[in-house]
Amino acid sequence: MIGRFKYDNEIFCGEVRGDRVVVDRGLYSDTFRLPDLQLLPPAQPSKIICVGLNYRDHARELDMPIPDEPVLFLKPPSAVIGPLGRIVYPLTISRIDYEGELAVVIGKRCKNIRASETGSVIMGYTCFNDVTARDIQKKDGQWTRSKCFDTFAPVGPYIADPALDVSDLAIKTRVNGELRQDSNTANLIFDVPYLIEFISTVMTLERGDIISTGTPPGVGELSIGDEVEVEIENIGILKNTVVSQD
Amino acid sequence: MIGRFKYDNEIFCGEVRGDRVVVDRGLYSDTFRLPDLQLLPPAQPSKIICVGLNYRDHARELDMPIPDEPVLFLKPPSAVIGPLGRIVYPLTISRIDYEGELAVVIGKRCKNIRASETGSVIMGYTCFNDVTARDIQKKDGQWTRSKCFDTFAPVGPYIADPALDVSDLAIKTRVNGELRQDSNTANLIFDVPYLIEFISTVMTLERGDIISTGTPPGVGELSIGDEVEVEIENIGILKNTVVSQD
Repeated sequence: MIGRFKYDNEIFCGEVRGDRVVVDRGLYSDTFRLPDLQLLPPAQPSKIICVGLNYRDHARELDMPIPDEPVLFLKPPSAVIGPLGRIVYPLTISRIDYEGELAVVIGKRCKNIRASETGSVIMGYTCFNDVTARDIQKKDGQWTRSKCFDTFAPVGPYIADPALDVSDLAIKTRVNGELRQDSNTANLIFDVPYLIEFISTVMTLERGDIISTGTPPGVGELSIGDEVEVEIENIGILKNTVVSQD
Repeated sequence: MIGRFKYDNEIFCGEVRGDRVVVDRGLYSDTFRLPDLQLLPPAQPSKIICVGLNYRDHARELDMPIPDEPVLFLKPPSAVIGPLGRIVYPLTISRIDYEGELAVVIGKRCKNIRASETGSVIMGYTCFNDVTARDIQKKDGQWTRSKCFDTFAPVGPYIADPALDVSDLAIKTRVNGELRQDSNTANLIFDVPYLIEFISTVMTLERGDIISTGTPPGVGELSIGDEVEVEIENIGILKNTVVSQD
């Protein structure tokens, strides 16, 4: 697991081993105690590409046909918060929802990558919460505004090894400890290699860019004060609290 | 007019005066001949926020009601090209369209700016071409993929002074010299101050971010080999050629 941290005004990446963080300094390495460090978002994307309806069980839940191609939308870098970051409930919004998702972090600039060759461009995997202003999403038709509020892209806590097999991982979302989403990445309609090929045909992916793969059934509302957790097997738990705008 | 240039592996901004470019070096200034410099996109946005249907005459053309709020979508930084850059016609696409637009470049990080106070956050104005894969836009419903192909965000040539009154400027698009769009920014439904307030309520705007204000009537198709020009009065002409992917 690789995390991004701040300590004493220095920002660095390090390998998380239990409650220790090992930072490679080239000729030597430093070890920190995890609780001493400020956790930052593990990636700094130039763009976040999200996928609509991409779980078979979610499609069934919504009684919608399985799409023949992924539907894409973007979140901006300004929406990113890290593990322990707070989701700010906008004053102008009457409903925000969690959407727990598996995210891929891109490891190097690439374009037109074939599905069979995507392994070389993946930095690793992490948890993502595609926070959505549901009222605005319905009103606008276009999803962008509802997805782009500051703090609506929690990501982390760390980046899991790219060698991890993500084709059969439990994915759960809890609100205040109560299970709300409970599925498995085996239900993904379009898997990670397919998505990287599909998206990299459209746009150049940069190191740090995030592809979030869509949410399983059970999306629902968040209230001020809620603690929302996205947990993915062998990856980790992304935990964020919802706070009011003021 | 401020442009961004490359010369001898150095990248810098400079003031364009006729066919000269003056670069402020602090204690002195350098002057270059414009034709000696490579023109770069005048801004390096972390995000590009575009506005759907925002010209009264375009809404009439499409027989659509005047929206009560702007509809937003994003283009990623990877789509940006500069003046003289080439629009690449994707192999997988059967129709791409020009959409000439007035764009605002943000001058400093801001959030929740009131319309009456937006003057202080505007770096200036430029021309934008919201190139769109029309077939994909119709198929997806969501506009993102159709707007996000590499090279689909031509911007430039320069950034005009923020003191410019943009409430009554002629805006024209030509393809191979033939006039295709011919309107005036007076037809904007939501003006620049309104848009900055509206968008900055949703997301933090960063220095260099671009807000493109929507296109007037007359959008239409581009073919490989076409030269497309977006001209805005007192701002300039953004000229790009369409090339095949290979």
